[in-house]
Amino acid sequence: MAFTARLTHYAKVIPREKFWLDPKNIFIIVIISLSLIDMIIYVGLKTAGHFGVRWSRVLRPLLLVNITEGRQLRRAFRSIRNALPQIFYVFLLFMFSVLMFSLMALKLFGKRGLETVEGIKYFTNYLEIVFDLYVLVTTANSPDVMMPAYNYSSFFAIFFIVYILINTYIFMSVFLAVVYNNYKKYLKEEVRQLVKAKRRKMLLAFSVLQQFGLGQEPVVSKAHWNQLVCLVQPGISSAHRELLWSVFDDNNKGYIGKLEFIQLPDLLNIQVITMKTRPHPLKRWFPAAYDSSTSRFVQRVVQHKGFVYIYDLIILVNAVFIGLDEENPLISNAEWVFLALYLVEILLKLYICEPRAFFSRHEFWNWFDTIIVVAALIATIFNWALSSSGGYTSRQILDIVFILRVLRLIRVVDSIKRFRTIINTLIKIGPTILTFGQLILVVYYIFAMVGMELFKGKVRFLPPDSTDPQKEYCGNLLLKGTAFAKNNYCKNNFNNVVSSFILLLELTVVNQWHVLASGFTAVTHVAARIYFVVFHIVVVIIIINIFVAFILEAFFVEYTVDKSVLQTSLEEKIEELELNVSSEADGNLGDAMETIDNDLGSSQTPKERPSLMFRIASKRYKTVDGLLQRMFEADLTLDDIDEQDENPTFANPVFGSV
Amino acid sequence: MAFTARLTHYAKVIPREKFWLDPKNIFIIVIISLSLIDMIIYVGLKTAGHFGVRWSRVLRPLLLVNITEGRQLRRAFRSIRNALPQIFYVFLLFMFSVLMFSLMALKLFGKRGLETVEGIKYFTNYLEIVFDLYVLVTTANSPDVMMPAYNYSSFFAIFFIVYILINTYIFMSVFLAVVYNNYKKYLKEEVRQLVKAKRRKMLLAFSVLQQFGLGQEPVVSKAHWNQLVCLVQPGISSAHRELLWSVFDDNNKGYIGKLEFIQLPDLLNIQVITMKTRPHPLKRWFPAAYDSSTSRFVQRVVQHKGFVYIYDLIILVNAVFIGLDEENPLISNAEWVFLALYLVEILLKLYICEPRAFFSRHEFWNWFDTIIVVAALIATIFNWALSSSGGYTSRQILDIVFILRVLRLIRVVDSIKRFRTIINTLIKIGPTILTFGQLILVVYYIFAMVGMELFKGKVRFLPPDSTDPQKEYCGNLLLKGTAFAKNNYCKNNFNNVVSSFILLLELTVVNQWHVLASGFTAVTHVAARIYFVVFHIVVVIIIINIFVAFILEAFFVEYTVDKSVLQTSLEEKIEELELNVSSEADGNLGDAMETIDNDLGSSQTPKERPSLMFRIASKRYKTVDGLLQRMFEADLTLDDIDEQDENPTFANPVFGSV
Repeated sequence: MAFTARLTHYAKVIPREKFWLDPKNIFIIVIISLSLIDMIIYVGLKTAGHFGVRWSRVLRPLLLVNITEGRQLRRAFRSIRNALPQIFYVFLLFMFSVLMFSLMALKLFGKRGLETVEGIKYFTNYLEIVFDLYVLVTTANSPDVMMPAYNYSSFFAIFFIVYILINTYIFMSVFLAVVYNNYKKYLKEEVRQLVKAKRRKMLLAFSVLQQFGLGQEPVVSKAHWNQLVCLVQPGISSAHRELLWSVFDDNNKGYIGKLEFIQLPDLLNIQVITMKTRPHPLKRWFPAAYDSSTSRFVQRVVQHKGFVYIYDLIILVNAVFIGLDEENPLISNAEWVFLALYLVEILLKLYICEPRAFFSRHEFWNWFDTIIVVAALIATIFNWALSSSGGYTSRQILDIVFILRVLRLIRVVDSIKRFRTIINTLIKIGPTILTFGQLILVVYYIFAMVGMELFKGKVRFLPPDSTDPQKEYCGNLLLKGTAFAKNNYCKNNFNNVVSSFILLLELTVVNQWHVLASGFTAVTHVAARIYFVVFHIVVVIIIINIFVAFILEAFFVEYTVDKSVLQTSLEEKIEELELNVSSEADGNLGDAMETIDNDLGSSQTPKERPSLMFRIASKRYKTVDGLLQRMFEADLTLDDIDEQDENPTFANPVFGSV
Repeated sequence: MAFTARLTHYAKVIPREKFWLDPKNIFIIVIISLSLIDMIIYVGLKTAGHFGVRWSRVLRPLLLVNITEGRQLRRAFRSIRNALPQIFYVFLLFMFSVLMFSLMALKLFGKRGLETVEGIKYFTNYLEIVFDLYVLVTTANSPDVMMPAYNYSSFFAIFFIVYILINTYIFMSVFLAVVYNNYKKYLKEEVRQLVKAKRRKMLLAFSVLQQFGLGQEPVVSKAHWNQLVCLVQPGISSAHRELLWSVFDDNNKGYIGKLEFIQLPDLLNIQVITMKTRPHPLKRWFPAAYDSSTSRFVQRVVQHKGFVYIYDLIILVNAVFIGLDEENPLISNAEWVFLALYLVEILLKLYICEPRAFFSRHEFWNWFDTIIVVAALIATIFNWALSSSGGYTSRQILDIVFILRVLRLIRVVDSIKRFRTIINTLIKIGPTILTFGQLILVVYYIFAMVGMELFKGKVRFLPPDSTDPQKEYCGNLLLKGTAFAKNNYCKNNFNNVVSSFILLLELTVVNQWHVLASGFTAVTHVAARIYFVVFHIVVVIIIINIFVAFILEAFFVEYTVDKSVLQTSLEEKIEELELNVSSEADGNLGDAMETIDNDLGSSQTPKERPSLMFRIASKRYKTVDGLLQRMFEADLTLDDIDEQDENPTFANPVFGSV
């Protein structure tokens, strides 16, 4: 109903022709109607007492893909679809290799009368061999699958070594290479099209706003530009706007040309942090006390490097205390000391640093510290109150307290520069990992729905404290004595969405997936293996490889590309205007700001410090598009501008034709 | 002794100062003396009845690295050494993360009194938790390590999901990214230095050979050039030499400039296949019979596409027959039919194709076919003779027959073009994979030696037919009831080099490595885990990642870079001179050659066909250096030539200073 309402509203807003031309809308209509039909059939069958399959549920995630907000997701899907033909051929060759090796294994081992540890005949059925060797590709049954042959003769190890080398190492690397290469190629093409479209629109905007200046060149005046920027980004400060303008209009001419104009969106994508250097509120309220020699001494101590080292040491001691038994009263009382120490640290930092700067949006670690320490304090007090009042300790609250205590230790990472760099890179690629999170959720949902239709209720989990004898075999006699039941995997089932997702995650991790698969084939049919093999191909071979490819690419970008041209010129401008915060301050702004204040105080430089400062949030991009664009910037920028300049009315290129 | 003799010989040949300046020689001397000392100590201890450790054995593979032939290996080692600092920091962060999660796990699960399936207390000892969670990173104990907590509460699955996401997926990808990036960077630098050194030497050669021509430019005459090429490549045909000359000297001036001259080694590295179009010997001997209408008909049939399809079909039918039970007389007789069919195919192909062209060096598939079929024929006849004479069938010969039969089926891959492309790429990167093979052998050898010192004789393998009760626990009571003995892993031991290597391979494949490690810790000490963890870090995290990185890079090169500039100009020249074999012939030359012959016969074109033809062995490089150079060619060629032109007496750059 929500999606229907959304669609109806959308259809009302945009023109009729456009609405029907967009395949997304048609797709949504088809899915909604199919779901409706399915619901009617299902209800009909149920009331008639028949068995019904809710097949339309697998279509649901496609709604998510087709709404406008799912742009990143749609692009990821499109990239996969485009890479499929290439992957398909490698996959065929890979399957051919597996089939050949299976045939050889049948001939070599089938007649030797070997047995596995479980006493099952070894390698006598061709289809079983194919499955076993497919599992070996995922390494999940290594070295067990080899042991009977290896025990018989050491020479047979050669067969398995060659198999693993070719199929596990070489073919899996080739899959990664093909997926990575195709993914990159198509993504590049899409981003290229996007950039082109953006440039084209900017040129249209330019032709609307253009005036003819003193020369014959068409230009855009500052007034028009200001109007535009205010419309596009309503919250922008006028100082920030002036800064951006000054990047383009170096000589203060009051107008900019076409080339500068079309770079506006890229410039707006660079995140500039505006900082107002305000005096510390304590200084404003109690200037005498704040500037007294004691206060100055405290400020100097807190700014000293030793302060950081002492707190790193405290964190390490705390780690040891956490590891010890918390039921010892000494240890549990020490916790209060540590909490107090952390609180004092935050208060001291706030004493030297202006609160609004300390808690500005980009001070990740300050926020992290404060939230963790305050939450730990609240939880510990709550826990203490509970236990001292009734002697009763809530396990849940204690768990939260423990997690918060350990999380506090992560802070130590921030004091080592090399670690900070790696962590920052990881935080930067966070949003893109979220896109992949969506992608995996969609794929998981589809497989979970199919899995629930196939295996729901076949395997039951009985709580560990139950005395029911069915616990032994997961409530299904067919599982009696299987590795699935022996390993206590009963809770890995498809009985509800949550356990299905966790099971699928275990299958993604690959290890023991053949045991999990064997459990479900035991309770249904041997053909259920197809479900698990298909899942492996789709998720592990395709999607995980794309994930790895993306992390690789993002790291290479971080390592190689330093800054875009625009970013550099913006930075230069900021430096030129002496509005920059020293780059040393990166990551630990509070200290640097205070240093500046302090310098002012002690040496009394006559030169007025500007009350407003800028800093570029170095490589952090507002949008995933920005990161992608930067990834391919080296290939894009020049030709695209050229092409656009030569042919500004270039027709909208269709992606399919490229 | 061999190495000492080699070194002495080497010391005699090259000047004394040079000998002592080369760290490789000093290294070899040190290793040999250490080995000698070790041998003396060991023999002394043995005769005195004490226990001795042959510690110098781990140094042996370093001899292999330090001899001149180990250049590729040395380079790979150097790349790894250079990448180590970067990897180290990521590794520290990764270990920090594992330690944090372990602490959290201890706090969350330690007091809950949970038990694993084996009835062991769950997550109560911090060091055990660290090891278990390290194993989880390798995925080897997933999902078993999670099950007790998951059975207790579904919420605890979140802990493991977050752990796997961060440590298995993200950190392992980051390792690949860092290894790949560093490896590429340093390799590039090394190849750059190599190319520079080569260019410098060519410039020196140029200054020796140069003459001043008509202009003021120094040039090298054709006579000098010919002399040089003959000295460098004694076996080169004069036609090939002429072709190479004509690439540089387009206008037939008789001399070439500096820029052309220094490209000579690159040109010589391009493999040109010289083919003489000879008439078929049967045509020479029995012209009438060979040109008769029956003969022509046979020739046309064999060249027809249907001929290939029919044989593909025969191969598929053969595959089915192989899969069936060979003890059925119908099936075993059918084998003779198939053998005869394959023989007929080869003979027919030889009938239409000149034998020397058919068996030329680059006709991989022709060679493959013939060897497999002839070997299968010999083995089958041998086997038949044995079984019909004494009724006794040798299992070994039968194994060989089976393997050859299955290998025959691989031929079908060659008829599908897409598969051929992938296979060709794989064959091309073969030599580089061999370099990695050496690298892995060296590392394996070192670990095998250490492992043998630590664990030799601790685990014994008793043959499966033995009735000794010790079979149950691998001849060591400490293993009674462990997963190691239950899984029948007794043959995975360090008792000799071969089983050590196979065991290390199993550890490289990762799955079940914790079970293997637990077996060896059970018979020695819990500290033995360190050996297995170090092996995992060195081999899986560093070396396998480099292997994957290299395959990725090689595939990208195959996908993106098409041909080098020189190659293109050489090809153009060949085409210009009309000496080319049509590109359609690529990979199936026999047919194309015959087509040309045939054309001549039927249409009697007046134009004389040249009796000599050239073809570039497209992307196949003679040396690994060539492939590496090509990998980084885009960045190299231009600046290097420029730099050299400006400063031809540039001092030898030391790699360490870069």
